[in-house]
Amino acid sequence: MSEIDDITQALIKFRNERDWEQFHNPKDLAVALSIEAGELLENFLWKPSEDAKSEKVKEELADVLAYAFLLAEKYDFDVKEIVLQKIKKNAEKYPVDKAKGTAKKYNELK
Amino acid sequence: MSEIDDITQALIKFRNERDWEQFHNPKDLAVALSIEAGELLENFLWKPSEDAKSEKVKEELADVLAYAFLLAEKYDFDVKEIVLQKIKKNAEKYPVDKAKGTAKKYNELK
Amino acid sequence: MSEIDDITQALIKFRNERDWEQFHNPKDLAVALSIEAGELLENFLWKPSEDAKSEKVKEELADVLAYAFLLAEKYDFDVKEIVLQKIKKNAEKYPVDKAKGTAKKYNELK
Amino acid sequence: MSEIDDITQALIKFRNERDWEQFHNPKDLAVALSIEAGELLENFLWKPSEDAKSEKVKEELADVLAYAFLLAEKYDFDVKEIVLQKIKKNAEKYPVDKAKGTAKKYNELK
Repeated sequence: MSEIDDITQALIKFRNERDWEQFHNPKDLAVALSIEAGELLENFLWKPSEDAKSEKVKEELADVLAYAFLLAEKYDFDVKEIVLQKIKKNAEKYPVDKAKGTAKKYNELK
Repeated sequence: MSEIDDITQALIKFRNERDWEQFHNPKDLAVALSIEAGELLENFLWKPSEDAKSEKVKEELADVLAYAFLLAEKYDFDVKEIVLQKIKKNAEKYPVDKAKGTAKKYNELK
Repeated sequence: MSEIDDITQALIKFRNERDWEQFHNPKDLAVALSIEAGELLENFLWKPSEDAKSEKVKEELADVLAYAFLLAEKYDFDVKEIVLQKIKKNAEKYPVDKAKGTAKKYNELK
Repeated sequence: MSEIDDITQALIKFRNERDWEQFHNPKDLAVALSIEAGELLENFLWKPSEDAKSEKVKEELADVLAYAFLLAEKYDFDVKEIVLQKIKKNAEKYPVDKAKGTAKKYNELK
């Protein structure tokens, strides 16, 4: 079994022991992920990156990842495959010769 | 090399080819992750889960995962380890006998 | 003085008494607003609208509004004017005859 | 009629002309607000505050405000009242002598 399958199985075991699948529809999982992304971001509020506490970043990032893996599982997405596909797609939107060294959005590149 | 290392290496290669590491400080990565979580959520706006288009969910979830993996790499976190640790911690906050079948937050459980 | 000016002045007084203007750059105000939007959303997680507690919704919505007013003040935007302008712009993107009764995005309307 | 009532009435007129009240339950309004907060934040991604384009900030902030006012209306909250109440509450959490000049959260103040 792959590493990501291992993680996903642990998340599902935790969820099922608590009978929480009834709450975990895709919409609420996406809502949960967005809330956790906000909690992660809170570690950087009013301060530069280097002042964030890595121990707290770790916990909130783990929550984000947990909901992302659970959502992927709901749709039966292969995490590795969908990220590699997206990189390929982004490589077309952001060709190296135009995107190099600039933070502009693809629709602002010339 | 593990599956998640594979994905992370592909993300870093894409980033470095475009000389984007200069923009990828942890704070902005957390901001980017939060923005992408909002775009993911947009697929569920004004509708129930079943009306969301899985093709679009897939793309936005891939973006969320990409920034989550890049942020983990910045801090040298092992994705599997931090999620499993968080499950353990949550198991204490949400003991099965109190949390079973309820969506209440840990501080509202009795 | 207008109602919104009154609110904004109260927010600025609170901020200045604590010498917090140094932290309130537009980027961090936008980050703060996004975090508070997540906390607002948390009141609706895993449940339908009617199960959210209005007392908590009230507090989190107040936080969102506070940062929105402070951000408007930073840019010297007139809140009434910018919302009315946006309604006008949206009226063009969502003409009544095409948008009536549908939750589709403007780029999906026919 | 107050300034905020004026804005809210304009938003409701826009909504009703399109028969959108059916979609505007509090949960989806909170989801919409969170999505718009992400779009607002996007103007600051990978850059310092001063590089954000104020014209775009204006539009996204208007969207955030629009959903905040619509949500307040749903609950029959008085915007001015709830923000002033929250300032009062925050004044207790952040007493001037402890909070002055620090960006720490209330639970980290000594």
